[in-house]
Amino acid sequence: MKTLIATQSLLTRLECSNCGKVYNTSRVQTFATCCNKPLLVNYDLVNAPPKTILKGRPLNMWRYRELLPLLDDAYKITLGEGFTPIIKVEKTADKYGFNSVFIKDESCNPTGSFKARGIGMAISKANELGITSCIVPTAGNAGGAMSAYCAKAGMKATVVMPSITPKIFVDECKLYGAEVIVVDGLINECGKKVGEIKKTTGAFDVSTLKEPYRIEGKKTMGYEIAEQFSWKLPDVVIYPAGGGTGLIGIWKAFNEMRKMGWITGALPRMIAVQSANCQPVVKAFHDLKGLQNDYEKPQASLANGLAVPNPFGLDLMIKAIRESNGVAVAVSEDDLIAGVHELAKEEGIFVCPEGAATWEAMKQLKNMGELEGSESIALLNTGSGYKYMNNLW
Amino acid sequence: MKTLIATQSLLTRLECSNCGKVYNTSRVQTFATCCNKPLLVNYDLVNAPPKTILKGRPLNMWRYRELLPLLDDAYKITLGEGFTPIIKVEKTADKYGFNSVFIKDESCNPTGSFKARGIGMAISKANELGITSCIVPTAGNAGGAMSAYCAKAGMKATVVMPSITPKIFVDECKLYGAEVIVVDGLINECGKKVGEIKKTTGAFDVSTLKEPYRIEGKKTMGYEIAEQFSWKLPDVVIYPAGGGTGLIGIWKAFNEMRKMGWITGALPRMIAVQSANCQPVVKAFHDLKGLQNDYEKPQASLANGLAVPNPFGLDLMIKAIRESNGVAVAVSEDDLIAGVHELAKEEGIFVCPEGAATWEAMKQLKNMGELEGSESIALLNTGSGYKYMNNLW
Repeated sequence: MKTLIATQSLLTRLECSNCGKVYNTSRVQTFATCCNKPLLVNYDLVNAPPKTILKGRPLNMWRYRELLPLLDDAYKITLGEGFTPIIKVEKTADKYGFNSVFIKDESCNPTGSFKARGIGMAISKANELGITSCIVPTAGNAGGAMSAYCAKAGMKATVVMPSITPKIFVDECKLYGAEVIVVDGLINECGKKVGEIKKTTGAFDVSTLKEPYRIEGKKTMGYEIAEQFSWKLPDVVIYPAGGGTGLIGIWKAFNEMRKMGWITGALPRMIAVQSANCQPVVKAFHDLKGLQNDYEKPQASLANGLAVPNPFGLDLMIKAIRESNGVAVAVSEDDLIAGVHELAKEEGIFVCPEGAATWEAMKQLKNMGELEGSESIALLNTGSGYKYMNNLW
Repeated sequence: MKTLIATQSLLTRLECSNCGKVYNTSRVQTFATCCNKPLLVNYDLVNAPPKTILKGRPLNMWRYRELLPLLDDAYKITLGEGFTPIIKVEKTADKYGFNSVFIKDESCNPTGSFKARGIGMAISKANELGITSCIVPTAGNAGGAMSAYCAKAGMKATVVMPSITPKIFVDECKLYGAEVIVVDGLINECGKKVGEIKKTTGAFDVSTLKEPYRIEGKKTMGYEIAEQFSWKLPDVVIYPAGGGTGLIGIWKAFNEMRKMGWITGALPRMIAVQSANCQPVVKAFHDLKGLQNDYEKPQASLANGLAVPNPFGLDLMIKAIRESNGVAVAVSEDDLIAGVHELAKEEGIFVCPEGAATWEAMKQLKNMGELEGSESIALLNTGSGYKYMNNLW
């Protein structure tokens, strides 16, 4: 006999992103062990309510309640994440021949970055599933976010960071009460360390796409872009891809909304930007050799969120880019810094280096003929520039 | 013959906050020279629309369009400020015997603080009035905000800061392209320096309450508290008062809303919190001697926004506190720091020291019998803790 649960969530099942094998949502899940690929969450989109249901709902990511995986609001851990502003770039866009450039400013999230969305969702769902201790490898903002949401949830937090991580990212984790472990090497080395620790402590690993729910928080950026653009999507979305959860999540959101009839017409081209120092997505997209080299000898980037040598979601990123007729490009370290300064001085927006990457990529792509100045373009600024202040001069 | 201007704003006139003398809104105004007091903006509240007009409007401070002083949206300078989250404090509030404590988290504003509201409004209005160069004395966040909004507006920005200002506050101004001048002494010394500079350069002084429009941006916190509490105001608002624009502004907003019929019933008690190192409002409220001493030998505070020895809006702050049956209290430096750590570790919210002051004051006031645990309480966290990181350990 089935017990029916009263829930607003339209959650149905988890599926392997490669072969479609179904995984049980009432147990703790990690990734699809059948194919060693990420799991994706499915919803009963056929029975979704019309988008008018959003009217009057709270202005945070939880307004898209039906399309989120948490069953019971009693387990929700929220710091008010989501519904960040979209700002029109004016005189500097004109200068480069663009008519319609917008920055979605994720720095206006709790803990100062878009990580609040994914981590907020993962920790809420972990809370619902009875988990009391979490661990994450991170080069920056994910650590602060996980520490903060674990603090609110009363969970133990362990954060494993590369030794080159700027001090402010380490300090914020400690401030939120997390245990911080520092490792020589980049994020992939931290991932290995996490593997060792979780074996002994039983801490739940919330690494990018190694659990199924961070992407469900991140996808709310896509829902918001639609809602804030009055349900007429921009022509292009430019996203700084490291682990890529946001890129995959936004694309998932667009497709969910189309299936529900919340939007119609063409979807935006999804453009991934990386650092020239670490560009596995660009190389995979263009089928360039050298990916293996990147993995062997990864280089750091000032945009620490982009220094992900071997992203677990690589296939899903390439799929989103190809399905949307997008492209992947890399930006030099000098250009990242120049972009931060240009947007601050001319537009009053202090983006993080990852955000600056999208701005610089946009200019590059126009020169390459991949973008028209007349297209409407949404850039994702994924976090606050303030945490990077010491590295900008 | 009068020319009629088509505008959404219900702006009518400026009045001296002491004697009511009327000042012309179509000219550049500073303060009420008749009484050497701040000017306040009046609106045609009798003809205000019902609050249902807000439905579907953009989620930033400009949604209260009729109650804002800018006549023509073409001059609006916005970075998406306003509509910050309100977060319920849970287990830690319970621990101290409070049922209903909320933090309005102003760190989720552009430039990381509530200053974005006041400065955004002042710079927009300055833009409308043809001003092209602005100057401000500031101990912190107002400098970053003014620099950012001036950058967006294409105006020259000059920021005068105490030499003890943490480096990150200086660096952000430079990043936004402002000229920064450093002065020995606290904010009052900076104010004198501003006086000298503006005589020679003609820069417009946007010092707290020395121009009439910053308060109109700040008051939107009051409108949002009402809207986010579903038009049923909390019993108490606790505000960290330095220059006091927000305290005065929130009180102004509550009274405007009552006159328009947007809210009914009792208004909250307005409680001002200061640093024990610099407490002119507390002393004036309790009629204590020593205010003059404070002015002669002011001490700095980690909560640099509270280190205002001689606030120009003192009378208006005392008036708001008294009219609302509020009170003013001071918090020690040690308590400020303890409050930041407690809220980070237990609730995952990284408040600035000024925000921590409201939390500590709340606990104090309960012990003093000035607050009941059953009352609903809104605390204002005025900015991001991240800019203070280096001073918290």
